[in-house]
Amino acid sequence: MNDGVIEDMGFATVDLDRERRTGFPEVVMGEGKTVEQIASIAKRIYDASGVVLVTRSVEKAADAVSELIPSAQYEPSCGAIWADDRGLDAQHRGLTLVCAGTADLPVADEAELTARLMLCEVTRVNDVGVAGIHRLLAHEDVLRTAKVVVVVAGMDGALPSVVGGLVAAPVIAVPTSNGFGTGLDGYAAMLTMLNSCAAGVSVVNIDGGFSAGYQAAMICRVGN
Amino acid sequence: MNDGVIEDMGFATVDLDRERRTGFPEVVMGEGKTVEQIASIAKRIYDASGVVLVTRSVEKAADAVSELIPSAQYEPSCGAIWADDRGLDAQHRGLTLVCAGTADLPVADEAELTARLMLCEVTRVNDVGVAGIHRLLAHEDVLRTAKVVVVVAGMDGALPSVVGGLVAAPVIAVPTSNGFGTGLDGYAAMLTMLNSCAAGVSVVNIDGGFSAGYQAAMICRVGN
Amino acid sequence: MNDGVIEDMGFATVDLDRERRTGFPEVVMGEGKTVEQIASIAKRIYDASGVVLVTRSVEKAADAVSELIPSAQYEPSCGAIWADDRGLDAQHRGLTLVCAGTADLPVADEAELTARLMLCEVTRVNDVGVAGIHRLLAHEDVLRTAKVVVVVAGMDGALPSVVGGLVAAPVIAVPTSNGFGTGLDGYAAMLTMLNSCAAGVSVVNIDGGFSAGYQAAMICRVGN
Amino acid sequence: MNDGVIEDMGFATVDLDRERRTGFPEVVMGEGKTVEQIASIAKRIYDASGVVLVTRSVEKAADAVSELIPSAQYEPSCGAIWADDRGLDAQHRGLTLVCAGTADLPVADEAELTARLMLCEVTRVNDVGVAGIHRLLAHEDVLRTAKVVVVVAGMDGALPSVVGGLVAAPVIAVPTSNGFGTGLDGYAAMLTMLNSCAAGVSVVNIDGGFSAGYQAAMICRVGN
Amino acid sequence: MNDGVIEDMGFATVDLDRERRTGFPEVVMGEGKTVEQIASIAKRIYDASGVVLVTRSVEKAADAVSELIPSAQYEPSCGAIWADDRGLDAQHRGLTLVCAGTADLPVADEAELTARLMLCEVTRVNDVGVAGIHRLLAHEDVLRTAKVVVVVAGMDGALPSVVGGLVAAPVIAVPTSNGFGTGLDGYAAMLTMLNSCAAGVSVVNIDGGFSAGYQAAMICRVGN
Amino acid sequence: MNDGVIEDMGFATVDLDRERRTGFPEVVMGEGKTVEQIASIAKRIYDASGVVLVTRSVEKAADAVSELIPSAQYEPSCGAIWADDRGLDAQHRGLTLVCAGTADLPVADEAELTARLMLCEVTRVNDVGVAGIHRLLAHEDVLRTAKVVVVVAGMDGALPSVVGGLVAAPVIAVPTSNGFGTGLDGYAAMLTMLNSCAAGVSVVNIDGGFSAGYQAAMICRVGN
Amino acid sequence: MNDGVIEDMGFATVDLDRERRTGFPEVVMGEGKTVEQIASIAKRIYDASGVVLVTRSVEKAADAVSELIPSAQYEPSCGAIWADDRGLDAQHRGLTLVCAGTADLPVADEAELTARLMLCEVTRVNDVGVAGIHRLLAHEDVLRTAKVVVVVAGMDGALPSVVGGLVAAPVIAVPTSNGFGTGLDGYAAMLTMLNSCAAGVSVVNIDGGFSAGYQAAMICRVGN
Amino acid sequence: MNDGVIEDMGFATVDLDRERRTGFPEVVMGEGKTVEQIASIAKRIYDASGVVLVTRSVEKAADAVSELIPSAQYEPSCGAIWADDRGLDAQHRGLTLVCAGTADLPVADEAELTARLMLCEVTRVNDVGVAGIHRLLAHEDVLRTAKVVVVVAGMDGALPSVVGGLVAAPVIAVPTSNGFGTGLDGYAAMLTMLNSCAAGVSVVNIDGGFSAGYQAAMICRVGN
Repeated sequence: MNDGVIEDMGFATVDLDRERRTGFPEVVMGEGKTVEQIASIAKRIYDASGVVLVTRSVEKAADAVSELIPSAQYEPSCGAIWADDRGLDAQHRGLTLVCAGTADLPVADEAELTARLMLCEVTRVNDVGVAGIHRLLAHEDVLRTAKVVVVVAGMDGALPSVVGGLVAAPVIAVPTSNGFGTGLDGYAAMLTMLNSCAAGVSVVNIDGGFSAGYQAAMICRVGN
Repeated sequence: MNDGVIEDMGFATVDLDRERRTGFPEVVMGEGKTVEQIASIAKRIYDASGVVLVTRSVEKAADAVSELIPSAQYEPSCGAIWADDRGLDAQHRGLTLVCAGTADLPVADEAELTARLMLCEVTRVNDVGVAGIHRLLAHEDVLRTAKVVVVVAGMDGALPSVVGGLVAAPVIAVPTSNGFGTGLDGYAAMLTMLNSCAAGVSVVNIDGGFSAGYQAAMICRVGN
Repeated sequence: MNDGVIEDMGFATVDLDRERRTGFPEVVMGEGKTVEQIASIAKRIYDASGVVLVTRSVEKAADAVSELIPSAQYEPSCGAIWADDRGLDAQHRGLTLVCAGTADLPVADEAELTARLMLCEVTRVNDVGVAGIHRLLAHEDVLRTAKVVVVVAGMDGALPSVVGGLVAAPVIAVPTSNGFGTGLDGYAAMLTMLNSCAAGVSVVNIDGGFSAGYQAAMICRVGN
Repeated sequence: MNDGVIEDMGFATVDLDRERRTGFPEVVMGEGKTVEQIASIAKRIYDASGVVLVTRSVEKAADAVSELIPSAQYEPSCGAIWADDRGLDAQHRGLTLVCAGTADLPVADEAELTARLMLCEVTRVNDVGVAGIHRLLAHEDVLRTAKVVVVVAGMDGALPSVVGGLVAAPVIAVPTSNGFGTGLDGYAAMLTMLNSCAAGVSVVNIDGGFSAGYQAAMICRVGN
Repeated sequence: MNDGVIEDMGFATVDLDRERRTGFPEVVMGEGKTVEQIASIAKRIYDASGVVLVTRSVEKAADAVSELIPSAQYEPSCGAIWADDRGLDAQHRGLTLVCAGTADLPVADEAELTARLMLCEVTRVNDVGVAGIHRLLAHEDVLRTAKVVVVVAGMDGALPSVVGGLVAAPVIAVPTSNGFGTGLDGYAAMLTMLNSCAAGVSVVNIDGGFSAGYQAAMICRVGN
Repeated sequence: MNDGVIEDMGFATVDLDRERRTGFPEVVMGEGKTVEQIASIAKRIYDASGVVLVTRSVEKAADAVSELIPSAQYEPSCGAIWADDRGLDAQHRGLTLVCAGTADLPVADEAELTARLMLCEVTRVNDVGVAGIHRLLAHEDVLRTAKVVVVVAGMDGALPSVVGGLVAAPVIAVPTSNGFGTGLDGYAAMLTMLNSCAAGVSVVNIDGGFSAGYQAAMICRVGN
Repeated sequence: MNDGVIEDMGFATVDLDRERRTGFPEVVMGEGKTVEQIASIAKRIYDASGVVLVTRSVEKAADAVSELIPSAQYEPSCGAIWADDRGLDAQHRGLTLVCAGTADLPVADEAELTARLMLCEVTRVNDVGVAGIHRLLAHEDVLRTAKVVVVVAGMDGALPSVVGGLVAAPVIAVPTSNGFGTGLDGYAAMLTMLNSCAAGVSVVNIDGGFSAGYQAAMICRVGN
Repeated sequence: MNDGVIEDMGFATVDLDRERRTGFPEVVMGEGKTVEQIASIAKRIYDASGVVLVTRSVEKAADAVSELIPSAQYEPSCGAIWADDRGLDAQHRGLTLVCAGTADLPVADEAELTARLMLCEVTRVNDVGVAGIHRLLAHEDVLRTAKVVVVVAGMDGALPSVVGGLVAAPVIAVPTSNGFGTGLDGYAAMLTMLNSCAAGVSVVNIDGGFSAGYQAAMICRVGN
């Protein structure tokens, strides 16, 4: 079957209509796919859209993609592969990305990359976990002018609640798997965020930098 | 201590500055508070802002609030008490609220009430669970024009993934505690939503109609 | 003890009567057995029945089986070893096998292989996850004529609910361990499926392609 | 909206097309709905189909339904309300329903009622838990001639594995919430069943008599 | 057996030596004991020590205790019964007790009562949850002079991490069961606290006001 | 069916052969059965054996049993109903039953009653939890002469490990649901016991006084 | 400290009195200890008792032990190291060891080795899982003459319930970590066993062959 | 930003004010950080304070730190890197550190190292688990004179309850991940400790030697 918008590649049915429906082409989840599958799906999307993003993949897959899409790049911290030949400037402003600890940076990087490919500018605030709350408060002005705030945190996952109480913008909280023992690979941080005592906080999957960046970019688009 | 923005009532420290910081006064969580505490906190907020919302409370608390705020109303399905004498019209448009089943209506009602108090118009689509997917698809046009979509669902919690694949707007998913057995009082639906295969979906607490309505209203404000 | 139907091999008591009781010889679970144990049990079953299936085993075991059963084959994606010298054609029709994502293919392959050895024809529909629901609806006709539908899905596990609402046939849902974080190695998808709001859906173990293929073949046999 | 197949009642969107698609009208889950909602939805389905089933409801709801549908009946053990004026005889044979303990009977009754409304004959085998295995083996002949077997069990949930090893038919296992402590309200039994060492066993939700009866009836239909 | 330090009452073996070993007589956990058991154990301890504390009991038990110990008092919020006729003044200073929300007050009250019976002065800071962080920072001076800080919080349980980053004193965190849904009756808050990114935080059982008050008093004693 | 050893009562299949196979007639689990079912099953067993035990039932069921078996008695703490007209003396010695706290007594009582009906003498040691270890050590001689020790404990469930290190006899550990918060209704105590650092400890279900008493009596029988 | 019964080796305090108290010297848990620690502790125990058992260790540790104790042997399947120069014959009879599947053999081997070192004869029944129940029933005579039965099973863990219903002897159930997905590394089997509908079943830790063998040997000793 | 107390290094915002606020400079959690990040953060802290501690890191990171801080040392058992050129003697006494088993030593070592860097003397009591309770009681005098006791235990985690009943000092319990199966990587031990029946016990994260040592040192400081 290939009716122009859905293309059946046998092992994959690429949803080429997705860009029309949702404003951005299908993003490929690399985990669980073979290198060959990743490369051929990425190529097909890239050919149709001029832009492609693969998340959570290994460097070997990036090499295979690069053979088909020479401009493809790889970010090893989060395993993202992407290519963008649309030549478009950022069109949306107001996304602030707050990261609790140094170990959470790869997840924040995935969020930033996603939002940038969706043509959002991203303002970063790094390593401002709640154990030294004055580090965060020093950024209060940047936070208050945001249209949407993504907050990435592992361990106790407490940062989104504090940020949520400071801002008038929606907060998207991203639990990370950083921590040990009762951190339960990010589950503890996720529960913290779902029970935030601050209103206006919603949550994505553990290590879900892509999901958060994607939704935040959607929200930025609302306001431009 | 009472410096004008934080008022210490002994059992409560009302954050009267919150409206300035976040655009809406503190909302009172009724659960766990005594009837007397609810009434006096509600009165204090109402006096400062002309509007107040108490969530998850019992009718007896509504009676106590009504004695202090005659215009207060009570919605028994979700236990909300509210009063609003600001005389303001809705200022934000584009919030669509999708509800999977009849049993999920109280949670959706809480979301709608919250958003309306934050001056958003709300378009409702009810009882369109995925077991009869054509019921949802019949509303595809309404969904596509939304700025933000709240999706309320219990049991399998599958609806946000389907909606997320249809729209360009951010989706806020609300798991409900409807279901039985392995539904785990909403936990199963929550996990479904956090693992949504559609991009652009974030999740709030189980039965978190208030949280979803609040964040959706924040997003609508971005775009107006 | 060896009374013709139960053979005690010391480390294993092969149930040679099983084929008479249930219509198919004992299937060997490879995981947890040594290469030597797998090979000798497989040989014993093959000698009695002319067909044997080993699931979830490593390639080294396949090599050992091949030494004893030259016609044995190995499917690396799901770790299945099998041999079939019965020379029988497919006798049962109506099994449709729906797979949500590319990463779920190995589990679907195990289901298909199992059903084929049980002499069922299998119709495949691949990569039709709910985030692009129109991909699934394009196959509505194939689904409606099925006698039984196996649906394989990871992440949110939402696909069986949608399929269950479209068909008059029983749906066997197979959660896969694809996903990350709150996917809990397939547990989230399993809970989704057990709470399906569509009637007529039952569930097998995570990554249980064999179980699903086996039961689906049993159901096909009912109708032929 | 009322296009003949989907009727929007405000609080419910009744899927009147479901009977055509799946062979049986929409079944109403009573839990979580108000008495008034149950009665009016049941009436609407009954008027279109001549048959209606409501599960997991209270007696008060049965009274309300009876006012609108005089022939409605109520089974207090499982909370089912139903009416059937189609005047149809059973058309499908071969469903055997095995119940582990006396306390599991209400769940088995729900399964039987569901299957009978779907025009299946049901053979019952009661109180044959594995702690007295000879009680089960005394029924081996009845089991071997079944087209499909539903097995209802709480506590250790071990019965489906034993039955699955005795029969050539598919087994649908229903965990019940009977038990205490580590029974985890049926969760332990459910896990047992999902890990059945017998092939051909699938599982429905805890206390899911309706789901099991529904799917078993679907399977019986395949063979008639 | 009654050797002066251990008294066997049949249903209870009162550890009268405990006061010598640990500095405070045995505290009676009321939950799970009958009214008669509570009263007679309390009387026995009171007679030996002049002070007694029963936690988590019902008012009826308080009545029974009062008949035997006329000076006994009851705090209904946390269910504590106590009597103290030692006529001793507070001897230890430096315990600050921080409470996140109004609903957490009963747990904080239990902690305060326990510490006071152990002759500690207690400074309270109420309703300073992290969603309005400036409410907490207004109390920074009080916090910095504490010898030990008890922090009581439900929902997201984020407050101890923030306090822990502000002070040089040990922080004992008490999760409360306030919240709903994914709050898991206090489990989410407990996990947050165990994963605190601030050093110097330890955690007691959910709603464990007594445990926290007891340990805090022990720490105050170290320093006096 | 009634072949003398298995009697089909419709709702129950009484296993009258059980006494011959296992040395004691079937014990009736009261929970989940109706009053009428309990009474008629108890009567049937009593008539065949002269002794009957029903566990976890309500007083109303005891009344119904008493109408059929006048000598029946009821123990409200654990909900046991029993009658014994065999006129037999205790035949087995060496069972010591250790109970950690006063709140655990009902579970210990169920164990003792079960063992006595199985003709074992029982030596009780009450309220010797590990927080006052000297209370336990005072009974070291009694413990060392036991053939089997049952240890009942809630909360931290630590007592079986200490006892296991003191004795040469097998220890059967019974977790109770006493405790709160992270006690998880006995789950925490159960995990403690399963991970006992003392060899020779095995565990039964939470609040499983019956199971422990039953197995302990079996062990005593071995040695007599 | 070295008072003859407790020897402080710095990193370990060997309990040389344990043999007198419990009838068997301290058994060394190899997991988590360094090779050097294992070897020196084993040597110390062996010198005092003439017998030593180390569980769950790696082959490298066995080599180190062999250098100090030349007669030491290693069983790679379960990682046991042991030496026994007491020259004693088996003194206790009646321990039957039933193993559900081939993959469970290593755990059963650990149980057998432990019991043999404690001077018990062990009768093995292998690969008789419930999916082919007639394999088990063929051994009914052996089971009925046992003094104690150890049952080792993974996956659904159903075998102990069936065995428990057949015998008058106590059953010690050992869940194994064999299985996948919802088997939860043995947790599902453990829950099954704790909820056994057969009386007289107790449970040890997952893969706890040592614990089961140890307790079974203790029970055998009672009867000899 | 670098205002003297907070230094923004891009990937990290070092909280140089922390030493003034809390009495010890920021401790670096090594896990999740790159070798380069660890080395440069450690250097920055060391330059400001003359002392630095990095926890849970790999040897390669220690090598990188040593290049920048030649006096740095590495403890492989717990992965700690530290340097201390302050030339200060221990100033606080009374910390007793009790370790249940040999396998728990690395966690205890992390606690001791932390406390020593905070200038506390540490008294160690090793390998005194509850299965040989007399080993612990032999140290009762040392325990009774402690100002604070840290108790490290895995498996059943029972030791803190016993210690808590012996001493008048606060007990900080550290669950370790030693054990297997239902030990759940330390979760079982943690639950035991949170449910301690001894008063005065608080708990830190699994394997949280650092947290326990840190808090214990804070408590010692209170008393000096």
